[in-house]
Amino acid sequence: MTQPLNVREAIQLARQLASRELTATDVVSACLERIAEREGEVQAWEFLDPDHALAQARELDRGPVRGLLHGLPVGVKDLFDTADMPATYGSPIYAGHRPAADAASVALCREQGALMLGKTVTTEFATFTPGKTRNPHRLTQTPGGSSSGSAAAVADCMVPLAFASQTAASVIRPAAFCGIVGYKPSFGTIHRAGVKALSDCLDTVGFLARSIDDVALFAAAVQGERVLPDLSPAGAPRIAMCPTHEWPQADDDTRAAFARAEQVLARTGVLAAALPLPTPFSGLLQAQKEIMAFDLARSLAHERLRHPGRLSEGLGQLLRQGMEIDVDRHRANLHKAAAARAAADSLFGDADAVLAPSAIGEAPAREQTGDPVFGRVWTLLGLPCIHLPFATGRTGLPVGLQLVGRHGDDRALLRMAAWLLPRLKDG
Amino acid sequence: MTQPLNVREAIQLARQLASRELTATDVVSACLERIAEREGEVQAWEFLDPDHALAQARELDRGPVRGLLHGLPVGVKDLFDTADMPATYGSPIYAGHRPAADAASVALCREQGALMLGKTVTTEFATFTPGKTRNPHRLTQTPGGSSSGSAAAVADCMVPLAFASQTAASVIRPAAFCGIVGYKPSFGTIHRAGVKALSDCLDTVGFLARSIDDVALFAAAVQGERVLPDLSPAGAPRIAMCPTHEWPQADDDTRAAFARAEQVLARTGVLAAALPLPTPFSGLLQAQKEIMAFDLARSLAHERLRHPGRLSEGLGQLLRQGMEIDVDRHRANLHKAAAARAAADSLFGDADAVLAPSAIGEAPAREQTGDPVFGRVWTLLGLPCIHLPFATGRTGLPVGLQLVGRHGDDRALLRMAAWLLPRLKDG
Repeated sequence: MTQPLNVREAIQLARQLASRELTATDVVSACLERIAEREGEVQAWEFLDPDHALAQARELDRGPVRGLLHGLPVGVKDLFDTADMPATYGSPIYAGHRPAADAASVALCREQGALMLGKTVTTEFATFTPGKTRNPHRLTQTPGGSSSGSAAAVADCMVPLAFASQTAASVIRPAAFCGIVGYKPSFGTIHRAGVKALSDCLDTVGFLARSIDDVALFAAAVQGERVLPDLSPAGAPRIAMCPTHEWPQADDDTRAAFARAEQVLARTGVLAAALPLPTPFSGLLQAQKEIMAFDLARSLAHERLRHPGRLSEGLGQLLRQGMEIDVDRHRANLHKAAAARAAADSLFGDADAVLAPSAIGEAPAREQTGDPVFGRVWTLLGLPCIHLPFATGRTGLPVGLQLVGRHGDDRALLRMAAWLLPRLKDG
Repeated sequence: MTQPLNVREAIQLARQLASRELTATDVVSACLERIAEREGEVQAWEFLDPDHALAQARELDRGPVRGLLHGLPVGVKDLFDTADMPATYGSPIYAGHRPAADAASVALCREQGALMLGKTVTTEFATFTPGKTRNPHRLTQTPGGSSSGSAAAVADCMVPLAFASQTAASVIRPAAFCGIVGYKPSFGTIHRAGVKALSDCLDTVGFLARSIDDVALFAAAVQGERVLPDLSPAGAPRIAMCPTHEWPQADDDTRAAFARAEQVLARTGVLAAALPLPTPFSGLLQAQKEIMAFDLARSLAHERLRHPGRLSEGLGQLLRQGMEIDVDRHRANLHKAAAARAAADSLFGDADAVLAPSAIGEAPAREQTGDPVFGRVWTLLGLPCIHLPFATGRTGLPVGLQLVGRHGDDRALLRMAAWLLPRLKDG
């Protein structure tokens, strides 16, 4: 039985598109059909022009195969600039705003033959005030934030790939709540030009898809690679369990997933000894919160000063808090973060990666986007993280864990994730 | 005898503006008069609307004193977004482009009461193809790049303060060629949101003025400080001479300034022993060039793909070179840079700062912007640098050196610079 095109993995579609077995028009049409069916309920899209999407597809079908993503439709978080579509950054201040250029990551994606299907809903400036999007698994619940529309669209098979970005937990948390794969690369890997800047030392471009192969393909293409990434395992990995300082906040669903993963690792003989968290890690959660607030208040200075009445109450308050943090305290926070980054390697011991909670538990109700508590510290450390969806919680919503690797060793992490995910699902 | 307003230091004007001894209209009028006289020859401004500048001044004069920069006119490098003026980034691709928001640094400056006098000429995307600006000291010569208009406008007393930015040597080199003070803060200090992104790990917002007090005031205000920076010396500094790996490229003028500075330091008893350069520093010049080319080709992906015919030949070639550097080589370069940053403290020995060349020598002819060779490595290391103008070369054009401090210790560096500059001038 053949899967409908909109349900297939990107990596499979990419092969069929490159061999001209499929046309971009076929794939885009299948995605648009799914969107037409489901968008009324899910509301993942901030901007979508089916004619423009189909015109891009026909142009790709007429030309040569351009690269790794030839003919693949991509959802673009509305925090990313696009020259052919509006970018609102989730704020009424930017209603109808049309950027002059594509974000670097969007342009690099197009260079590899991808087509931008539309813009997906983000929370207000990628912070905590929810947009309209609903969790496709249960419409009363949040898809998570801030990459809400991207996660919902991928989970609902409206598009195989979507851009996300993380300043606290905005790649990993929506991936967890929607039950898909989310990949936040090592800090400094993916070019951020043209993504609305919130925090220079935290903002990270990330990738959402329904398989490890797919996020690996997506990331490789955006980095300008020209051959498919090889995810065959380089020997059995060593993986340690890392509950983190925030463990007391994990609920029973996350604890159950954690225990189950530990059993799988032990049974397959890859469980490394868990290490105590390095001393410089204590207090990092608070440092990340303060750095983020300090930076937001400054990066959004124009919006804060010129459009105070068009910010949500929650964001207005966060920016006021940020302005109250003085330069000396900020410097001390940055110093703490730098010390922890320098000590990050000691977290791993003889392990190649650690498994840690991705979120407190299942997706909460739509009035909020869920607590980013389990993403903040990894973002501050700049380590690569991949959310692995492999379980369901008490009410049947998705639950999983994130695999965290050493800085810069993203290929090894992707390989381990590809090895581990099917075992966790079977476990 | 009273100095004309356009010639006075910002710090002096700021006091008189805060006490309402002077009005912003007085100061802006004096600057506009100077510009009217000289702009035909110097060509420092990409955009200037005198009526808009005066309207801003009158508004400030009517309201309360807003902050440290109340009523002070600022020149804004045309790489920075401004909501009330165009931003062309030095490229015909963006002719007439009007950004939706102010850059964070511009907005933070306005919050402190500054007014944006106009946009100053930048080279094409802050790289190496010169704009129209001439060196005010000799019109046949370059003002340096990429902050060409900012440096020329400050040097020619058209404006007391101007924004600059540095990816290779674009703060320090124009400051050197124009004989003014240029301050590149520690990497990560000044928010970059809304400055056209070229390289995430190199781009640094910087400040140009005619005194150390003035760059210190400017930087403090943009960081949200509310009291004047205290530059009184904290004891006698220890300063070492650092010729750098690039010394063979320094010409006789730079060598003479270097020798004279060494004598001054020795005579005043603050000369620390010069240390050999740490091993991880070798090869950094080449690493910086490659990282910059790699990043430019990606950050400017939209312009490269959509407007190839509107890039200069030089930039087109640089972007092609950047696309040829593969991800593994880039990763190795970043690794080298990280190791050197970690070893940067060992450069100083028992010294608090080092003195190093700022440029090869005097400003060359206008067909180029001069070699950034003496800026690249410090930018890659992220260390704070201040250009000290204190000498003239064989043909009478400005020459000086840069004082380089430890990462994050910008206040100490500014204090040392304030102590040292008058001594070097007298020496």
